[in-house]
Amino acid sequence: MAVQNVRIALSGLGNLGRRFVRLLADKKVYLHERYALDLVLVAAADSHGAAYDANGLDPSLILRTKQLAGTVAAYPEVGRPEMSSLDLVRQVDADIWCDATPVNLANGAEPGTSCIREALEKRMHVVTPNKGPIVLYYQELTYLAAENGVSLRYSGTVAGGLPALYIGTRALHAAMIDRIEMVPNLVTGLILDLVGSGTTWDDALALARREGVLEADPAWDLDGWDAAAKLVIVANSVLSYPAKLEDVKRSGISGLSLEKIRSEFERGRRMRLLARATRTDSGYSLIVAPHTMPSDHALGRLGPREMGITYYTDIYGTVTATIKEETPLPSAATMLRDILDIMLETEDR
Amino acid sequence: MAVQNVRIALSGLGNLGRRFVRLLADKKVYLHERYALDLVLVAAADSHGAAYDANGLDPSLILRTKQLAGTVAAYPEVGRPEMSSLDLVRQVDADIWCDATPVNLANGAEPGTSCIREALEKRMHVVTPNKGPIVLYYQELTYLAAENGVSLRYSGTVAGGLPALYIGTRALHAAMIDRIEMVPNLVTGLILDLVGSGTTWDDALALARREGVLEADPAWDLDGWDAAAKLVIVANSVLSYPAKLEDVKRSGISGLSLEKIRSEFERGRRMRLLARATRTDSGYSLIVAPHTMPSDHALGRLGPREMGITYYTDIYGTVTATIKEETPLPSAATMLRDILDIMLETEDR
Repeated sequence: MAVQNVRIALSGLGNLGRRFVRLLADKKVYLHERYALDLVLVAAADSHGAAYDANGLDPSLILRTKQLAGTVAAYPEVGRPEMSSLDLVRQVDADIWCDATPVNLANGAEPGTSCIREALEKRMHVVTPNKGPIVLYYQELTYLAAENGVSLRYSGTVAGGLPALYIGTRALHAAMIDRIEMVPNLVTGLILDLVGSGTTWDDALALARREGVLEADPAWDLDGWDAAAKLVIVANSVLSYPAKLEDVKRSGISGLSLEKIRSEFERGRRMRLLARATRTDSGYSLIVAPHTMPSDHALGRLGPREMGITYYTDIYGTVTATIKEETPLPSAATMLRDILDIMLETEDR
Repeated sequence: MAVQNVRIALSGLGNLGRRFVRLLADKKVYLHERYALDLVLVAAADSHGAAYDANGLDPSLILRTKQLAGTVAAYPEVGRPEMSSLDLVRQVDADIWCDATPVNLANGAEPGTSCIREALEKRMHVVTPNKGPIVLYYQELTYLAAENGVSLRYSGTVAGGLPALYIGTRALHAAMIDRIEMVPNLVTGLILDLVGSGTTWDDALALARREGVLEADPAWDLDGWDAAAKLVIVANSVLSYPAKLEDVKRSGISGLSLEKIRSEFERGRRMRLLARATRTDSGYSLIVAPHTMPSDHALGRLGPREMGITYYTDIYGTVTATIKEETPLPSAATMLRDILDIMLETEDR
């Protein structure tokens, strides 16, 4: 079996991007043996510049350069300090564009959105765990991908490494989904359990921040924006319901009283930020709110490092999937999942 | 979009087969609208005969005929009392062969195995929730399907409607799976919880039998053969580990003492028949045995109508999926899942 080269360009070298680069190195031999695929990273960009070599960059050297110089633009010979990710996507010759830039809804999820548009128009497949472009422009981007005959995959946008979208879109064919309930955000569960067990609110936030699980703007997690964004993506892709962020009735965990959280915790019950889509006569109602989980609920015993989703269906019973994530590795690995899925699907078999 | 006709032939009109026939009727309009597919049942067989009409049989009339006459062979005009399922597969012109005959390992899982072989050789896709042929002839049948360029799908062979195989084979690409733990059998969990809460062993068996969840030969469930068969299928298809039934170290629940079951139950812990695959230096070790589930295990709080599977991976964290099945409908629906999966995958998109 001939080994197929897959040329990958990556935008974003933060927590997820760097882990993905390392995964490409760590899994190289395995991907070769198991799938006859050689994933070649031909380009990478961060907010200070880029590096591009059609023959492939060295993953270890990218990581070292990033660590020592703070930017991949310092990569020997082929580093380009003047090159933005948008410049890169316009110039690069690659099969798959990976966007691992951070979520940023304030300005239209740029530069992610423009880069993804450009990549799809150039007929590159696109893989991204960045919720921003997907939640704001779901309809446009999925249409653009279909029109150009390429794939757009974003399995990492919902509940980290949990294959929530895969189950919803592929394993529940023909089902009527009456309700979806999910606990899609790690940090709010961690904070609620910490506060419940006696930690002060400020100490819980500080701990979450130290662990790198709280976004730079804590309101994104605490006020339920993150959960709402994930719910919108699930609504669009699994339920084919064209929801927007403003359709979600949203309340976060900041307004909860310490007494309430502690009294539930002491009674052995877990509070979680629950995102719920419920079928109505005209579509689905979408709600994000803190909720005391019944202990016999499939999501009622989630630990502080766990997320999950429950699908209530007419013909497949009630299906729940959960994930325990100790590190952001599973979220980074979703890019590998999506790439392999595209390549294994588009090859002749 | 033109509607595509998919001709289906079904062998087996027991609990699963009949529910599948009803599903075809109930979901007809939806499948038309959502997927532009018309699933036409052109033939059906039971142990007394068959009916075959290239223009399509009427699902309601099949069910009525089966109920009144005990066999589909009494179907008006096109019923064939003399025709076996093997005769049928040889004569029928169809796109997909569905085998919903009961598990029967004693004689080489016949007539399922011969029919599936014949169907694959005739280049029909095959869909089956019947563990027998898959567990006994996994290598041969998957090879035969590949050689003939058709699909063999059996998502209903493991844990009913739970998409356990879909997750393992499609959502965990590139992962090293260190361990799989599963509670793949409903009836043993039901019996253990009944006995734990004070029901006698005999009454628990009688109740399970009345509900139709206990196989005709109770040893199949109680001695762990069912769980072992499911573990072998998972080992082959997810782990690419060519295990056979005799490779499973197996003990069932019949040997458990009432005292043990009750004392665990009273302490709030659940006993379940656990199937486990653990990676070793040379492959995987496979074990089926009763196990007191720790309450913080993702499968530690399963109710008596629930099954589940946990994958321990190197790059996607720990992923668990569970299902609550109140009736055998989800198991029957796996045939619809598999058919749609084949049709949506093989069409141009």
